[in-house]
Amino acid sequence: MQNPDNAARADVSREELTSQAVAVLVRLRAKSPRVHCITNSVAQNFTANALLALGAVPSMTLSSEEIGAFVVRADALLVNLGTFDRERREATSIAVDAAAQNGRPWVLDPVFVDRAAQRAVYARDLIFLEPKAIRLNTAEFTALAEASPTHDAVSTFARDRRTIIGLSGETDLITDGHRIASIGNGHPLMARVTAMGCAASSIVAACLAVEEDALVATAAGLLITGVAGEMAAASAQAPGSFAAAILDALYNLDSQTLADKARMKNNTGE
Amino acid sequence: MQNPDNAARADVSREELTSQAVAVLVRLRAKSPRVHCITNSVAQNFTANALLALGAVPSMTLSSEEIGAFVVRADALLVNLGTFDRERREATSIAVDAAAQNGRPWVLDPVFVDRAAQRAVYARDLIFLEPKAIRLNTAEFTALAEASPTHDAVSTFARDRRTIIGLSGETDLITDGHRIASIGNGHPLMARVTAMGCAASSIVAACLAVEEDALVATAAGLLITGVAGEMAAASAQAPGSFAAAILDALYNLDSQTLADKARMKNNTGE
Amino acid sequence: MQNPDNAARADVSREELTSQAVAVLVRLRAKSPRVHCITNSVAQNFTANALLALGAVPSMTLSSEEIGAFVVRADALLVNLGTFDRERREATSIAVDAAAQNGRPWVLDPVFVDRAAQRAVYARDLIFLEPKAIRLNTAEFTALAEASPTHDAVSTFARDRRTIIGLSGETDLITDGHRIASIGNGHPLMARVTAMGCAASSIVAACLAVEEDALVATAAGLLITGVAGEMAAASAQAPGSFAAAILDALYNLDSQTLADKARMKNNTGE
Repeated sequence: MQNPDNAARADVSREELTSQAVAVLVRLRAKSPRVHCITNSVAQNFTANALLALGAVPSMTLSSEEIGAFVVRADALLVNLGTFDRERREATSIAVDAAAQNGRPWVLDPVFVDRAAQRAVYARDLIFLEPKAIRLNTAEFTALAEASPTHDAVSTFARDRRTIIGLSGETDLITDGHRIASIGNGHPLMARVTAMGCAASSIVAACLAVEEDALVATAAGLLITGVAGEMAAASAQAPGSFAAAILDALYNLDSQTLADKARMKNNTGE
Repeated sequence: MQNPDNAARADVSREELTSQAVAVLVRLRAKSPRVHCITNSVAQNFTANALLALGAVPSMTLSSEEIGAFVVRADALLVNLGTFDRERREATSIAVDAAAQNGRPWVLDPVFVDRAAQRAVYARDLIFLEPKAIRLNTAEFTALAEASPTHDAVSTFARDRRTIIGLSGETDLITDGHRIASIGNGHPLMARVTAMGCAASSIVAACLAVEEDALVATAAGLLITGVAGEMAAASAQAPGSFAAAILDALYNLDSQTLADKARMKNNTGE
Repeated sequence: MQNPDNAARADVSREELTSQAVAVLVRLRAKSPRVHCITNSVAQNFTANALLALGAVPSMTLSSEEIGAFVVRADALLVNLGTFDRERREATSIAVDAAAQNGRPWVLDPVFVDRAAQRAVYARDLIFLEPKAIRLNTAEFTALAEASPTHDAVSTFARDRRTIIGLSGETDLITDGHRIASIGNGHPLMARVTAMGCAASSIVAACLAVEEDALVATAAGLLITGVAGEMAAASAQAPGSFAAAILDALYNLDSQTLADKARMKNNTGE
C-alpha cells in the first residue's frame, strides 16, 4: 500500500509558482495581515520595519499575561528562538497554544541552534507543536536535524515533521518533502545586516496569513525577501545604506518586478 | 455655581500657539533636557535617536533597582506600555513615584491598549497617577475611554482626568478639556516606520521638560514631529530612507522652518 | 627596589602603533572573530550591525542558561552595563567565568555609572574579574574612579587594575598605566547617535580577539571607530544618515585609509 505522505503530488511549474508568489504579494498588500512576532530584542525593530514596509502590521509583546490576546487578534505568528529564558519559553508556549486553538499559522526560526545544545533540544520540542514552516540556515539545519543539509535530508526532515522547510543560502531551498522549490535570488550584503533572516521569517509568516498552501507561502516569502535584496543592492553598496534600501525595496516592490526578477525553480521531490 | 474646571479659559490664537511651540524648540535646544524612557525594546533605539537628534539626552534603563535614581536625574519621564510584564510594571511604579516626588513631568503612551484588555485596565490605573499628557491614536483612545474619539469625548476625558490628551491622526488633536488645538502636519510614511508614535511621545516628554503649560508642550512636541515628517518626505519616498531622514530633520529643524510649516489651529473648547 | 608594575616599558612610536592598528584590521577581516555581546536592548541592533559591517560575527543572547556555551564558542566578550537587573548580572557572572576559564578576552563598558550609585559599585566589582580593557567616557571614569580624568589619574587607575583604559572624548586616551596613546580621530555627530560608544566597545572586543597586546587592540578599536566616523561625516551631515554612513564606512574601511587618516600619538607614560 502506498503511504499517502510519500506519494508524489502533481507538481506546479516554475511559472506557476512564480505567479502564485505574485498573487500572495497582491493579497498581502490588500489584506495587511497582522503578524505577532516573538523575536529577540536585536531583531525586533528591523523585523517590525520590514513588515510595515511590506504592508503587514506587526506586534511584538512577549508578556505571557497578554500574548494570548495578541495572537488571537493576529493573522499569523512568528516564533524566533533568539532568546531562551524561562519567561519567553512560557510566552512561546501560550502563543503557540493560542495559534493552534484559533487556526493561526506559525513559523519557527530556530536561530543559532548550532551554538547551544539546549536551544536545539528546545527547537526540536517546538516542532512537535506543528509550525507551518521552519526557516533556517544550513548550520542551524545541521544542528537541528543532526544531518548535513542535502536535498534528501531536508526533504526527509520536512516530510517526517509534516512541515515546510525554508532553508536559506546562496540558493534557498523550500520543501514539504514532496515538492521542492529553489530560489536563486538574494545578495551577499544581506548577510552583513543583523536580523535579515529573522525579517525573512516574519515575511514568511505574513505570507502564510494570506496563503493556505504553506509551501507556496514560504517560497513567496523568501522570494520577496531575495528580490528586495537585489533591488536594494542596486542602490546601496554597503550594509548601513543597504539596510535602509531593503526596507525601501519591500515598500516599492510590485508584482511586475517580482515576476521579472524571480529566479525560482520547482522540482518534483522524490 | 460655575465649576472652575469647566470654565472656558482665555484662549490663545493660532499664531500665539505656533510662536509658543517655536519657543519650546529653542529652549529644548538650549537646555538639552534629560528624558528617561520606559519603553519597549522595539522602540528603544529609534526613540533614543530621535531625542538625540533633536538635542535631548535619553536614558532607557528599566531596572527597578536603579530607575528611581535615573528619574531623579532626568527632567522628564516617558511611560510607554509596549510591555506588560511584572518587572516593568514594578519599574513603572517606582519611576512614576520618583517623578511625582521630584516634580518631574511624565507622559503616558498607552500603546496597543486596543489589543489586550489587561493593558487597558493597567493604563486606566496609571492615569490616576497624573501624567501631564497622554499621547495615543484613535484605536487606543477608543479602547481606553470606551468611547469614540469625538472632540466632545476627547475633551471630556482630558478634563475629567485633568491631563492633556494628544490624539495622533491625520489631524492631531490636543486638548486639556477647555482648550483644543489641532495640527495638520505629518506624512503617511510616518505610519510605515515602527516606533514613530513612541518617538513622538518621547519628544512630548522633552518639551514638557522645558514648558510649564502642558497643552503648549504637547502641541509643540506633536508639531515638531509632524513638521520633521514633512521635511523627511521631501527627500525620502520609502520607509527605510524615511526613518533616517526624519532623524536628520529633527536635527536640522530650525525655528523659521517650524513657524513656516506649522499648520496649527487653536479652537476654544466648550 | 623598583616595582616591576611601575617600570617604564620600551615604548612604540606613533608610526609603529598606527601600523600595528592596520595589522589588527587586516587580521580582523581575515579571521572574522566571533564576539559575544552582553549589552542593553537600545544598543543591540546597532552593535551587531557595526560588528557585521566590520567583518566580525556578533551573538547577543543574555540567557544565563546558554550564555556560557555562546562565550566558549566566541573569540571575545563585551560586557556593557546598559542594564542592571538580577537576570543580566547572573548572565554576566557566568559569561565572565566562561571567558576566564577559556582564555577569552573581555571588555567592560560601564555605561552610565555616573547616573546610579549601584551601577558604579557593580562596575568596580566586575573590574576585579580582570577585563582586558575598559572603554568609557569622562563622566563614567570620574564616577568609577572617584577622580577627575587627568592623564595621571587614568594611568594610575589602569596600572592599579592591571587593565587598559580606553577613555573616549574629543581626544581618546588609551593607557595601561605605562604606555599612553592618544587618538585625535572622530566626529561630533558620533555623540548624536545612540549606542555609538557601545559599538566602539564591541569593536575593541573584536580587536582583542586578534591582537594579544591589549593596548594595541584597544587603540586599534578606537582608531577604527574614529576614522569610520570621519568617513561617515564626509557623506552625511545629520545623525540619521550618519548612523547608516558609519556602518558603510566600517565595511569600506581599508588599510590605506586607516593609515592615512590616523591621528595617533603614543607617549611614554611615567
